Amino acid sequence: MKKSIIGVDLGGTNIRVAAISMQGSVLHRTKQSTDPEAGKDLVIEKLLQMLERSVQREREAGRRPQAVGIGAPGVIYVRRGVIVSSPNLPDWVEVPLKAIVRRRISLPVVVENDANAAAYGEKWVGAGKGADSLICLTLGTGVGGGIILNGRVWHGEDGMAAELGHTTVNPDGPQCKCGNTGCLEVYASATGIVREVKRRLIREDSILKTSFQGREDVFSARDVFRAAKAGDLVCLRVIHQMGRYLGIGIANMVNTFNPQIIVLSGGVTAAWRDFIPIVKEEVTVRAFKVPRIRAKIVRAKLGDDAGVIGAAGAALQAMKGRNHWL
Amino acid sequence: MKKSIIGVDLGGTNIRVAAISMQGSVLHRTKQSTDPEAGKDLVIEKLLQMLERSVQREREAGRRPQAVGIGAPGVIYVRRGVIVSSPNLPDWVEVPLKAIVRRRISLPVVVENDANAAAYGEKWVGAGKGADSLICLTLGTGVGGGIILNGRVWHGEDGMAAELGHTTVNPDGPQCKCGNTGCLEVYASATGIVREVKRRLIREDSILKTSFQGREDVFSARDVFRAAKAGDLVCLRVIHQMGRYLGIGIANMVNTFNPQIIVLSGGVTAAWRDFIPIVKEEVTVRAFKVPRIRAKIVRAKLGDDAGVIGAAGAALQAMKGRNHWL
Repeated sequence: MKKSIIGVDLGGTNIRVAAISMQGSVLHRTKQSTDPEAGKDLVIEKLLQMLERSVQREREAGRRPQAVGIGAPGVIYVRRGVIVSSPNLPDWVEVPLKAIVRRRISLPVVVENDANAAAYGEKWVGAGKGADSLICLTLGTGVGGGIILNGRVWHGEDGMAAELGHTTVNPDGPQCKCGNTGCLEVYASATGIVREVKRRLIREDSILKTSFQGREDVFSARDVFRAAKAGDLVCLRVIHQMGRYLGIGIANMVNTFNPQIIVLSGGVTAAWRDFIPIVKEEVTVRAFKVPRIRAKIVRAKLGDDAGVIGAAGAALQAMKGRNHWL
Repeated sequence: MKKSIIGVDLGGTNIRVAAISMQGSVLHRTKQSTDPEAGKDLVIEKLLQMLERSVQREREAGRRPQAVGIGAPGVIYVRRGVIVSSPNLPDWVEVPLKAIVRRRISLPVVVENDANAAAYGEKWVGAGKGADSLICLTLGTGVGGGIILNGRVWHGEDGMAAELGHTTVNPDGPQCKCGNTGCLEVYASATGIVREVKRRLIREDSILKTSFQGREDVFSARDVFRAAKAGDLVCLRVIHQMGRYLGIGIANMVNTFNPQIIVLSGGVTAAWRDFIPIVKEEVTVRAFKVPRIRAKIVRAKLGDDAGVIGAAGAALQAMKGRNHWL
């Protein structure tokens, strides 16, 4: 009987559940909207039912699911499988998701930070396939980080390592919701980019100001990227600033880890062409030569599947006895 | 026949060679001044003769040396055992020290960055004894870093990881000799502290200004610490600024690694009582709670022996087949 792993990507917008082969390919995938405003209990029940159906579907296909890997946003106490808090799931505080899922689905369960999962997915079958050391930054609503060393996720003592979005790149920078100031996240996240454009619109002219008239607060990072491509100076400057701080963060990672590869994923990478030259310039000035030449900076490959593949991979890694958190 | 390891601490001021037991204690130690101005070849010859004598002495004591571990300052290409460049040994450029020593002393040789060696020493038998994950910062003339994960030194792909002194803590800060601006080293090294006090003496009054009269450039970091203890405001402010940026750097390491312990070593730790409250305040504001509570911040224990013990430990680690650089 063939084996598979169930991967879950529990996002603020969608819940994705997929069956993943032992080689990292997607066997089947399902998706439902999360609707977090319906409350934690309903979301969990939805997730459990999706899981049950997925397990059932695998069995009907003649495969035996080995484990469940769940990637979730926010602060995850990986060792205990607890979601401590999550910006996209506001009423999820100290939720023992691993224990809850294990009780209903009789399979080993791993709850992993979604950014760690994405990093592992990219290392397993994505842009960093086969890399021994890889740093992944997910530039989305927030900025997440995943660290792969010796081919495995580095979790730290409490499973809370790799909060790379909350390392300081400018000590006197804007307030971050984590309590710190000048985190990488305030510059390199979609939220941060939109916030900075809005701040500048008070005094400066921009395509966005004109096209949105009195309703400046209804544009997204994607609108900013589009305006930048059309030559809008305010948007270009904000993306350049983003590139600068992202470059500072990446230079720090290069000098800290001397890794093989740095993978950037998430919606903000849509502006790749506008920010990557600035990033590379900054890394050239700030990082040592040998590790800088070593570390390739590349775009992620797995897209929407990164979460489910990576979460399944994390469960697979745990099953291989490489940690004791299963 | 009992075994031992020869540990070497190749500094800009002294060469220390010691025999270290397999349990990490010093069996015998010798020291000579380096006199780097005599030129690389003479320093190497001195080192080789010290090594030969140390090996001989071990054999006479009935022990068999297993390997030589050398800790050296500067940029070390650990994988190849090459000293790429070294601020304290100016004419050492691309010196294949491992090959040179191996040719003369018929033992396996490891050349390790001195900060990595210090980190390993502290983890082996020092302030972080038995720790699985440890970050060590050596606050001396420069700022070095060592990263221990899963009980071993993390070298990165080229053996150039852990250059934590050259991570940016203030993007627009002063120029560092590495080419970057606002490195941790420009704030938390003895050199950086003295530079900053001098800069402030142009406009501000200080005990140092009075006592050194027209020769303001003849004081050391130790004089700064002494003046601070006597209540000198300029020196206190500089140490507080140092504590702030060190705290920012440490907070970044806490959020990146979620380590068990952070060890601070080197001459600058003489000002421990003056800077550590500021460091802890900064870490509290900037790092996440769980990893912050986990990571103890402590002073190193091994003092002048850290280099030789750590270098021997690095050789021992390599011998155990944990890397292929021996």
